[in-house]
Amino acid sequence: MKLLQKKIEEEGIVLSSNVLKVDAFLNHQIDPQLMKEIGKEFAYRFANEGITKILTIESSGISPALMAGLYLETPVIFARKKTSLTLINDLWTAEVHSFTKNETNKIAVSKHYLTERDRVLVIDDFLANGQAVLGLINIVQQAGSSLSGIGIVIEKSFQNGRMLLEEMNIRVESLARVKSLENGKVVFLEEEAVGI
Amino acid sequence: MKLLQKKIEEEGIVLSSNVLKVDAFLNHQIDPQLMKEIGKEFAYRFANEGITKILTIESSGISPALMAGLYLETPVIFARKKTSLTLINDLWTAEVHSFTKNETNKIAVSKHYLTERDRVLVIDDFLANGQAVLGLINIVQQAGSSLSGIGIVIEKSFQNGRMLLEEMNIRVESLARVKSLENGKVVFLEEEAVGI
Repeated sequence: MKLLQKKIEEEGIVLSSNVLKVDAFLNHQIDPQLMKEIGKEFAYRFANEGITKILTIESSGISPALMAGLYLETPVIFARKKTSLTLINDLWTAEVHSFTKNETNKIAVSKHYLTERDRVLVIDDFLANGQAVLGLINIVQQAGSSLSGIGIVIEKSFQNGRMLLEEMNIRVESLARVKSLENGKVVFLEEEAVGI
Repeated sequence: MKLLQKKIEEEGIVLSSNVLKVDAFLNHQIDPQLMKEIGKEFAYRFANEGITKILTIESSGISPALMAGLYLETPVIFARKKTSLTLINDLWTAEVHSFTKNETNKIAVSKHYLTERDRVLVIDDFLANGQAVLGLINIVQQAGSSLSGIGIVIEKSFQNGRMLLEEMNIRVESLARVKSLENGKVVFLEEEAVGI
């Protein structure tokens, strides 16, 4: 997605060869017009898939997932990282390990909102080692829902998340694929000729 | 906002005389079409205010804030509840006490995205005791930004948040005002004749 690549080039900050900071438009400040275009693009790529629910994880997945839900005309569920007062019982849960933070957190989705009748699109802001997405897939499987695929805003293609998912024969659509962050520079994988 | 009141009546669950659970469309599962209408309504109520930034707090504030930002054509910032790897320095911070969870958390906003040139609309999902909103206002003040007002999706009018804000001469626009949750029933304050 050229619009997204341009935004990353202009406003992304390479903190190290592993870390791309996009707090300017995705992870802290959000650009609503860009999110709208991202939502449209996900809807275009997963049209005619019979999707009934979009599943993401708080907090940075919510904006792209919400806009995809707007255009696919489906509800959006965000997995909780910890349970809150009004969300206690009847949960599907999974463990998610973060290599960057070196901690494991439980994520949870209410059994009320994900069932065996659902066909699910999982959306997240970043794909790196794939741990968050694997946790979400685990929950989709527990619920007996069918998985349509994974929609990612920014993929760090030099980490092994995509490989793990492809080995499971899961479709992954990443709107920007970052090949390298070496020497403070963002290099993208060549984009397929699809969408915007 | 009649559409929102109807949704609360149909899908909200009264857990106690204090707690209204709206996990079906706002706090866990999200209804994107409803969020779009909510965003439009906030934009309508705060039009011609010269707003340059919308400030909310993760996670449930993000969806209504994002849609308001789409229609007001402004960026949206979500305050972080804890700092992450890529968000460490140059922060405005405030303490927010949660009476329901009986804990105090620090919230943080990057100094890069909120400055004295900004005019800010603060948006949140719920207004109860007003502690989260007061924390966000504190950050707006530290940044030297001007505050246009507060946009709330659901106000629990029987708690003292609105009173605290009105004593500070701050404009509060709540799209649904809940007068009481007694006896398992949602009773609304009469809605002003504005918007949808």
